[in-house]
Parts: sequence; structure tokens; C-alpha cells
Amino acid sequence: MRRCHLSAVLGLLLACSGARADEGMWLPAQLPQLAAQLKAAGFKGDPAQLNDVTRPPLAAVVSLGGCTASFVSPQGLIVTNHHCAMGAIQLNSTPERNLIRDGFIAAQRSEELSAGPAARVWVTVGFDKVTDRILAGARGKTGRAYYDAVDAARKAAVAACEAEPGYRCSVVEMYGGADFYLIKQLELQDIRLVYAPPESIGNYGDEIDNFMWPRHSGDFAFYRAYVGKDGKPAPFSKDNVPYQPPAHFTVSTAPVQVGDFAMVAGYPGVTFRHRTASEFANQIDWLLPNRVALLDGLIRTIDAATAGDPDKQVRYASTVASLKNNLKRAQGELDGLRRSDAVRVRREDETAMLAWLAKQPDGRRALAEIRALQVQLDAQQASRERDLILPFLRPGLLGAAVQIQRLALERGKPDALRETGYQQRDEALIEGGLKQLQRRYDPEVEKATLRFALKRYFALTPAQRLPEFDAVFGRDEAEAAQRLDALYAGTRLGDTATRLAALRQDAAQLAASDDPLLRAALTLQPALLRLEAESKQRAGELLRLRPAYMRALIAYRQSQGRAVYPDANGTLRVSFGKVSPLSPRDGIDYRPLTTVAGIVEKHTGVAPFDAPKPLLDAIARGDFGSTADPVLKTQTVDFMTNLDTTGGNSGSPVLDAEGRLIGLNFDSNWEAVSASWMYDPRYKRAIHVDMRYLRWLLAKVYPAPHLLQEMQLPAQ
Amino acid sequence: MRRCHLSAVLGLLLACSGARADEGMWLPAQLPQLAAQLKAAGFKGDPAQLNDVTRPPLAAVVSLGGCTASFVSPQGLIVTNHHCAMGAIQLNSTPERNLIRDGFIAAQRSEELSAGPAARVWVTVGFDKVTDRILAGARGKTGRAYYDAVDAARKAAVAACEAEPGYRCSVVEMYGGADFYLIKQLELQDIRLVYAPPESIGNYGDEIDNFMWPRHSGDFAFYRAYVGKDGKPAPFSKDNVPYQPPAHFTVSTAPVQVGDFAMVAGYPGVTFRHRTASEFANQIDWLLPNRVALLDGLIRTIDAATAGDPDKQVRYASTVASLKNNLKRAQGELDGLRRSDAVRVRREDETAMLAWLAKQPDGRRALAEIRALQVQLDAQQASRERDLILPFLRPGLLGAAVQIQRLALERGKPDALRETGYQQRDEALIEGGLKQLQRRYDPEVEKATLRFALKRYFALTPAQRLPEFDAVFGRDEAEAAQRLDALYAGTRLGDTATRLAALRQDAAQLAASDDPLLRAALTLQPALLRLEAESKQRAGELLRLRPAYMRALIAYRQSQGRAVYPDANGTLRVSFGKVSPLSPRDGIDYRPLTTVAGIVEKHTGVAPFDAPKPLLDAIARGDFGSTADPVLKTQTVDFMTNLDTTGGNSGSPVLDAEGRLIGLNFDSNWEAVSASWMYDPRYKRAIHVDMRYLRWLLAKVYPAPHLLQEMQLPAQ
Repeated sequence: MRRCHLSAVLGLLLACSGARADEGMWLPAQLPQLAAQLKAAGFKGDPAQLNDVTRPPLAAVVSLGGCTASFVSPQGLIVTNHHCAMGAIQLNSTPERNLIRDGFIAAQRSEELSAGPAARVWVTVGFDKVTDRILAGARGKTGRAYYDAVDAARKAAVAACEAEPGYRCSVVEMYGGADFYLIKQLELQDIRLVYAPPESIGNYGDEIDNFMWPRHSGDFAFYRAYVGKDGKPAPFSKDNVPYQPPAHFTVSTAPVQVGDFAMVAGYPGVTFRHRTASEFANQIDWLLPNRVALLDGLIRTIDAATAGDPDKQVRYASTVASLKNNLKRAQGELDGLRRSDAVRVRREDETAMLAWLAKQPDGRRALAEIRALQVQLDAQQASRERDLILPFLRPGLLGAAVQIQRLALERGKPDALRETGYQQRDEALIEGGLKQLQRRYDPEVEKATLRFALKRYFALTPAQRLPEFDAVFGRDEAEAAQRLDALYAGTRLGDTATRLAALRQDAAQLAASDDPLLRAALTLQPALLRLEAESKQRAGELLRLRPAYMRALIAYRQSQGRAVYPDANGTLRVSFGKVSPLSPRDGIDYRPLTTVAGIVEKHTGVAPFDAPKPLLDAIARGDFGSTADPVLKTQTVDFMTNLDTTGGNSGSPVLDAEGRLIGLNFDSNWEAVSASWMYDPRYKRAIHVDMRYLRWLLAKVYPAPHLLQEMQLPAQ
Repeated sequence: MRRCHLSAVLGLLLACSGARADEGMWLPAQLPQLAAQLKAAGFKGDPAQLNDVTRPPLAAVVSLGGCTASFVSPQGLIVTNHHCAMGAIQLNSTPERNLIRDGFIAAQRSEELSAGPAARVWVTVGFDKVTDRILAGARGKTGRAYYDAVDAARKAAVAACEAEPGYRCSVVEMYGGADFYLIKQLELQDIRLVYAPPESIGNYGDEIDNFMWPRHSGDFAFYRAYVGKDGKPAPFSKDNVPYQPPAHFTVSTAPVQVGDFAMVAGYPGVTFRHRTASEFANQIDWLLPNRVALLDGLIRTIDAATAGDPDKQVRYASTVASLKNNLKRAQGELDGLRRSDAVRVRREDETAMLAWLAKQPDGRRALAEIRALQVQLDAQQASRERDLILPFLRPGLLGAAVQIQRLALERGKPDALRETGYQQRDEALIEGGLKQLQRRYDPEVEKATLRFALKRYFALTPAQRLPEFDAVFGRDEAEAAQRLDALYAGTRLGDTATRLAALRQDAAQLAASDDPLLRAALTLQPALLRLEAESKQRAGELLRLRPAYMRALIAYRQSQGRAVYPDANGTLRVSFGKVSPLSPRDGIDYRPLTTVAGIVEKHTGVAPFDAPKPLLDAIARGDFGSTADPVLKTQTVDFMTNLDTTGGNSGSPVLDAEGRLIGLNFDSNWEAVSASWMYDPRYKRAIHVDMRYLRWLLAKVYPAPHLLQEMQLPAQ
């Protein structure tokens, strides 16, 4: 039986049997209409209560900016990931009192340590659709004008909202610009570190285990939020009092088992699930393989250019590490999307959607708009070879010269009109980067990377080449090699003082400079500004035209009895599913729960597998009390679900069928790297700290009985 | 209920409940007495028939020298591993007809290719205890005299046995010298290659998958043995006829499932399962950690000495690869033995044995002998630091000089009395090594490795240092560095012609040489000869005294109702157990059967994951016929059992409860590297090609219907 309640509200499509329960980063407002699926999945609460982010239980979920956290007591106690609290732990560490190494327990409130003046906790208090208000001035416009009208309306809405002190506001687009929401968040400013395990627990396995299963991290830490005596957000003060949140989670004392219902609430950053079939094909058949080849070639180029020279190797170590990380991610995403046959799957789905759309009353107009969108996407792809290579044509010192020229140009405008990244508040960061360059640059290596990138540039079609770049680098590899030698032999920017002096010059002074790199940067500038303008023009068109595609998709899914969640955009979302094993490859099964036995197995005594002695001793004693798993007869550590998460979900509360806190999300599995584009139920898993491990550590290993008491948890 | 039939025959202890069924490389003669365990494990055949290696079924199991194989037709058809047949495949490959890459199918007998004049198949026809004969002349002697007496008796027994043409004989010790067996083998000399899959099937995954699970190799090939028309072994001749073996295996057509009985018969090489507790402690607490540190340091030393110099890196690439392989093995063995807590387990077992022994009628005398053994072992361990480092003090060119001096010394004796490795038949090999050195040597790198090793040498206690080595290398690191510079600046052995000329000189000529490396080698020689003599003296004492320990162990196990198998020594053994999954680490389960899905998953198109197109196409078609697994609904590839195997078991037939061939052993898992010393039932697994995969390949992918017919197997 399939019953679908039709709703006129865009995106808030109703629960029908037929929807895939596991996939989806749902807007809270969609959840009451997914009641049937929630119930079928095992949820025992009232789905209607999930509707309002300003009331329990979702009001307990907060953003740390890039991470998620949640309240776990009426006295503002917050739990999140250890890696999300790392800044605060670092800030309070000294050689004498190394909180990273040793962990931290505030025995009483007065010992809680300020997480610093920049630390924030944002509590979402408003989540309202403002589509008409944002698009009112844009309708009828196209391209850059559309983009600018939307931008102006967004800024006005934010300014009006932030007129009330103590709040941060933002306008976010949903469904590719079909809808806009105004998000209002209470901005708590006095955040204090309450508890952190040693890094060798909180980050056990570090980079080696990153993205891996089985996992054995105790990736958690506690904060407490404070406010002024008037209950309003205030900077750190000894006189501040604990914030009393609108809601907090109860930590579960029940076991977690395979197949159990699980739900995660958090602030996922960005996904591309609803991109068009041509965007999928471009990503998988062109962009990722080419990015992999480019990064691989660049790494080899740097390796060859630094071989046998330890000084150069050190200078480029972090560059190479970052390139390798990007390469690994790109390869993982590519492997995953191929494994999921994503190009074909998405193409077949879109073809079916368009066929369905053609038969609908308003189908012709919608198809025309989708064709217009496709024209824009095709135009974008026409320069993809150039767009891929261009960032690599301004590395290190040349990049610094480009940045110096651009900042001088922007300084000629009122601050509010300067390009993002070149405003007054950005100048300190730019200066820091220019200083740091000294330790990360070698002219011979930089020339080698440029020769590598230029080889690809010279292979571009004439239409993709840029006269300004030709003017600087010449017409072919031989000419480029000579030009590069001259540029780097002549420049004085390699000297930090000279570079910083240039940063302080105005555009006219810089234009008069005879430094060959500054002159080259000035030559390149018009091309870079032109491309930027084209990009904004295209962004406007995509923002204008993509809603047609999304409306078609939503209507088509509605016809299938399925709801559509908007792609992740940093706003509060809920996913529900279950505790799940994984068969990552033929012949291998991953169990969904790990145990302390794995900590001992991985322990080598050398970081990142240097479990602290108190932990190893406690495991050896086997005294697990009420936190032991009744089936496994030992202490669990982490567990795995099929919940739909992405970057930004770190620290997110994982809830059981009763809405009690059973885990903290902290990672995904390697097989799910491709989930930014496609959720494949065979492979997508999320990795969580088991709250029973947290409870055991607080009870028996690094004791904090007062926190257990505050959370109304058993002492043992 | 425990019923043990006592037997006076040493080692042939009888089946009792209580024995661990999975562990054990049993002598065939022990099997009838393990009937109860065999039956309990699921064996449906008659254990009494396993007693005689010259009759069916074990007469079907043959040795290839380092590998095992088995007859699968009355016409001399033999199946073994692809990697065991690699020599024959290579020998018959040309650039135009690349059998390694493309595989090989002889469409008829006349197309079968000779495996070369050195290829052999050995059929065991005699397996007799000759303890009294071997020890008759040794009794009452000690040390070197004991060793020499045993050696003389062995040589005499072998000579008498080999008097009959067409046979190879050997005398092997069992239970550390408590027993000796005369093994007589028919030596088949005309071996021909019948079928080999492409390397990308036979060695799919190569080094990357080596020791790993899940596995997807089709590691099999077919030979056929030929004899003269008189039925006797003969070299290759067109007139030869297929050998008619005394037995052959029937290939199973039934599925393989987890828990199924399995039995393997083969020629395992060497194990150390019955070493004393002090030998276990020495291996795990001292030797392996120190070997790991030494190898790791040496690799770093070579890496540093070759950094930035591609020529040097190439010269030392194979040395480094071999060191890394040894390091990996040592680390794997160490990790495994620690995981199994082997020091403690063995110590507790031995302590209990000695306590039991003290209460036995003849216990005092046995304990005295065991104490004498311990004295020898202690003496051996007293110089362990030196014994570990000494081989690294004669690398490359210096090693060549030592070898040249030694060969000249040995040439002064009758050939039969020369030291093993320095006889006439070895000289070509020595010359080849001296030539090859040219591509594997650099004086600066060799000096760096010597400085590294000497640093450890100079840290030895005075008692362990050798005056001859001090004379050559000096008293400390500074002196050594100077000496090395002088040695390598002065030597002319770096020139191949000079080196080979030196090889042809006699001892007097060499003694007169002024080449500093040849002079250094001559100075070192007395020390090396002295250590060799000490080592033989000790070997004699261990051979004399170890039987007391083994007799005590056997008697003790008998009291526990358990039989004892002798450590592996290259003779025919049988192990039985079952098809078994594995949990290698917390959170991971390995399924015991892999499928063709894994071939596709691993396929990258680049070796060693370059599955050939006909295979990929056949998998895509999914046409698996009668070879498909009825439960998994697809084609299986490899499977895993808990059978007790080690190096030498490659190619061994794996049999089901009815004695039918279900698999070919080809590897162990990484967690079982430590099984040379201890069988840990939690981790020890053996990896086999599923005969159904072989049948499918022969039926549908690289067809050989005539071979299926010859084995009386279904065509599809």
C-alpha cells in the first residue's frame, strides 16, 4: 500500500512507502512527513517533535562551525569530538601541562578552561523559508544581474536579522536556488573546556586509521557554554554562568546491537547528490581521472626536483603531503563512484525523469529551462582542461606576486566592495602566508612544477589559451623554460623583507616595479579578472536555471512516492538508519562494533598507536561494569551505522529509537568517500564513538564522577 | 572418556580424545592411530589406508623439490601450483610465444613441452625407520665425533639405497635426532608442461596479495610425467610414454562449504614447534627483535648512502628489496608469536613437562640429559650478539674476497672432503655470483654498511670479539673508518676481470697477493674456520642431547592422551582440519571462500591486477555451469582452511572427507607467519585454489576439454 500526502510546499514531500529510508540528509521540517518510514525503521518517538529545531530534541544540537556538538545537561554541558575541541586543548597546553598528551579533567567548574576568544557555539533558533523575499528582485534578470540581485537580498536579510545582538544569521540556498532559508543562530561566546582524554585515546590511530574500519578512537571531549548573568551571550568572564539550553540529550544506558535504529542530527557541509547526469559524467569520466593524473604527475615532479636534497625535501614536505592527501581522496572518490556505476545510474534516472516530465502539463516549459541549464553546463565544461590546470600556473612565489598585485588593486575600493578574501580583515592572513612561504619555497622546484603545468597548458586548444599567459610564459615548452629561468633569476621576491615591502605598496608603485615576477603577475591579472567575471556570470545563470531541474526532480520523485532532501549546505539535518555491518570487498565482513581488544592489538607503543598505560591496565583488568556489552562480554569502543553523513557531521549526536544519545559521529569509511556525490547503500557507513566507551573511560580510566552525575549516569 | 592405546613405537602415539585435531603435520604411519580424531573431524575414508605412502591414496602425492604436486589421472597427469611450474613456463617462453603472459594449452600429448633436463618429480616409494643403523656407530661418542659418525652412517645408507638406478634416497632425522628415516624416491626425469593459465590468473595479485586474504589467484598448472618404454625413469625422449602412477586423485565435483572436513598431504620444509622454552624465549625476546632492528638499520643505512644517486639506488635495489622482505617476515613472525603469547605458553608447558618427568621412573636420568642440552643451548646463546652481526661483516666485495680465499683453501682437498658449497659442482655458481657482483656493488655504500655493522661489533663484550676481526677493522669506529677507506681505496677486486682472475689462483698465489681486501680476507679466515668448527661441535652435541628432550615431550604428551608429530623436514606429511573463516583482528571477519566478484574488484588493468579479458568477459557473462557454488550462486576462486602447512606445501593436494581433490594449497595468511614456531588455532590458516575455479577455467575460459575428460570431469 502506498499512501502519499501531497504537499504544495516545495521540498516538503510526504512520507510514502517506497522511499529509501537509509539515504537522506533531511530538513527537520521534512521529518513529520517521513513518519511512516521513521516508524518502519524503528523510531519510537513522535516524528512531529522533530519538526521544530528550536524545541527538544533538536534544539540540543549545536554547531561549532565545521563541527557539530550537543547539550547533555541542563547546565550547558556539551559533548563533541576530541578533534573538534583540539584548538581549545592546544590553546591551553604548555610544555609543563601538556593537555594534548595527558588529557584534561576539570574537577570543578572553576577549573574549566576558556576555549579562547574565537571559540563559538551556535544554537539554531530560526530556520525560515524566505524564498520570495530573496528572489523578488532577481526575477526577470539573468546572469550576473541575477547573481547580484540575490546577493544583495541575502545581505539585506542577514543585516536585518543580525540587528538583534547576540545572533548570527545567514541565508542559504536549498535545491540549487529553488528555495532560500534564513538561519538565525544564538552565538555563545564563552566556551570552556571541561574534559578531554589524552590524544592517544581521542585520536588513537590518527592518519593511519583515518577513514578506516575497524576503528578504536575515543574521539570525544566536553565543553561547557557560559553566558552573562542576564542569560545572554557574552565574552569570557569569571562572573558568567552556565548557559541553560532549550534542550539536552539523555545518554543511553542500553546496549547497541547490529540492526538497532539510529538517527544522527548535525550540520553536514556540502554534497552534490542532485547534480545532473552530465555533471556526474564530467566528474567521474573526466575531472577525477584528470585530477588524479595531474596530482600524481605533480608529486612525481616535486619528488624528482627535490631528490637527494634534504633541505628542498623539507621545504616541500607539507606541499607533497597535501597533494598526496588530495590524490588519495580523488582516487577514493573515483573508485567509489565507478564501483557504484554512478554515471550509468544517474543517466538512466535522469533519462526516465525527462521522459516523465515530457508528459506532464507544464513539461515543455520545464524541459526548455533544463535545456538552458545544460547549455550553461556545456559551456562550463568547454574550458575544463584550462580550469583544471590554471591554479597550478600560479604556485608559491609567483602566486605571491599575483596576490600582491591583486590586493593592491582591491585596496583601491571601499572595503565592503572588495573581493572576498581581499578585505581588510584578510590582510593579516595574507601577510602570514607570505612570511611562511620562506620555508616552503625553492626556485628550482617551483620552476619544475611550472614546467610540468605549462606542458599541459601548451597542449590546450587555441580557444582555451589565454593571451596574457602566453605573453608571460611564451608559446611552447622551450620558450617557457627560458622565460622561467629569467623570471626566477631576476626576481627579488624570494627575500621575505622585499616580499613584505611589496605587500605594502599601492597599485601605482607596484606597476612601476621592475621585478620580473611582479611584472608577470601584472600581465596575468586581466586574464584572471576576466575569468572571475565569467565565473560569476555563470554562477548567476546556474542559480537561475538549476531550480527548474530540481523542481522536475522533486515532482518526479513525488510521482515515485519519494521525498527529496536538499543537498547538504551546512544547515541542521537529520538522517536515520541502523547499526550496520559492511562487506567492503569480496571475502571480508566488517563487524559493526569494535572492542577494547582491538586497542591492545593495534598498540605498538609508538604514536599513533600508543595507548596510555592506565587504559591498557584497565583493559587488562577487564573491569567494565555496567558499560560492558552483554553479548560480547567486553567493552565496546566504536560502532558503525549506515547513516547519511558528510564533512561537518563530526561530533554529531547519534540517537537511538528513544532519542537517547548512543554515539558521537566522527568519521566515514574509505568506501564512502564517494558519498559526496552518491549514497550507495552497499558501502556508505558512518563511524561513531560508542557512548558506553565514553562512560567507561569517565567511570574507570580517567575518572570524572561529577560529569557522570551531571549527566545522571551510573558511577560504574 | 579418554582411551589411549599405548604404543612402544616412538612417535607413533595413538589416537586419544584430547588431541587437538587441527594442529599437526603427521607422518602417514601415525594416521591409522589417529582414526578417532580423523573420524570426529569428518573423514569418511579408512585411516588405515593412509598408513602406506606407496599405496593409494598417498602414493598420488609427489615432490617437485620445494613444491608438492599430485597425480590426477592414470596417464601421469600432474597438478601443482602455477608458481611451482614457473621455471618450466619461463623455459619455454620466447618473445614471440610468451607462455608467462598468455598461458599454455597443449591441445594433444605431442604438443606437451619439456620442462627441461633439470626438472624432476619424486615419487616416494620407501619410508623406513633406520634409527639403529644410523646411531650404531655414534653411541658413546660426543660432539663432533657424534656428528661425524651419524654423517658417515647417513652417507652409507644413501649410497646403498641409490645403488638401484632411477632412485634418489635420503636419511632424515625426526624428533631432533631421536629417530632417523630412510626415504626412497623414484626419480622421474621427463616432465612436460601440459597446461598453464596466463600469469595474470596464476599469479593474480603477486607480491601485493602474497600472504594476504582475501585471495583471487588461479595458482595452478598441469604437468605430465613420462618414462621410458620399459616403464623406468629416463631423460626426455620423444619415444617416452606417460608414466602410470601407483595412484591418482579424483577431482571432486561437490561444493566446498565452511566447516567441511579437509586434509592436505605434502612435503612441508621446516618447523621449530618442539624447540625448548629457552629457544622460544631467545627467538621471540632476543633474536627477532634484534634482527628487526638490525635489518631496519641496515636498510636506512643503504637508503642514506644511495640517496640522490639513481645509479647507486639501482645497484642496491635488489639488496634492499631482499632486506625489506626479510624484515617484513621477521616482524610478522615476531608480531604473531607475541600475539600468541608464545614465550609464556611454551614455558608453562615445559615447566609442567619437567615436573611430570621428575616423577617418572627414569626421570632423573632424562632430566640430567635435558640439563646437558640446556648447557649447550646456553653456550650457543652466549655468543648470539656476535653470531647475529657476523654475516653482515662480510658483504659484497669483502665477502667475495673471503669466498675466493676459502675456495682456494678447499681446492687443496679431495673433492669429496671439501666443505659443502665449495665442491667442484659449486664453482660455476661461485663464479656467476662474482660476475653478478659488478651490478650490485658500490664501494661507498659497502663501506657505509660495514661501518653500520662494525658499530654493533665494537659494542660486543670482549669475550665475543674476535682477534682476527679486530686486526682487520681496528679497535673502534674511528679506526675502522680509516681502515675501510684504505681497504677500498687500495683493492683492485672491484674490477671483474681482476676478481675472476683471483678466483682461479691457488692458495699460495693468493697468500702472496698485496691486494688489501684479499689480505684482509686471509686474516679473517682462521676466525671463520674456528667458528665453523665450533658450530659443528655444537651441532653434534645438540643431535646427541635433543632426543632426551623429545622423548620426554612425547611421553608427557602420551600421558595427556596426545600424539606428537615430528617437526617438518621435507618429508611427506598429512594434516587434517576444516574449511575455516578467520577473524584476523577485532572487528574483521574473513569469509573462507572468495568469488570472481573479487577479481573484478581488484582489477586495475595494471599488473599484478590485470585480469585477462577472456576472464573478465566470462565473469560478466556469469556462465558458471556446474562449477558454480550452490549457496553463493557464483563462481568461487580460493578457499581457506585451518590446515597445518608451511613452506614446501605449495601445490599440495587438499582433499575432502571422501579423499577427493577439492583444492591446491598455495599460501598461508599473514597472521600465520609465526606458525613455523607455534600453531595458533585462532590465526593459522592455509590458502587454496578451489578446484571448481580450475574446472571452470578449463571448461569456459581457457578451454581444455581433453584434460577435463582425462580427469573424468564434466565438460561444463
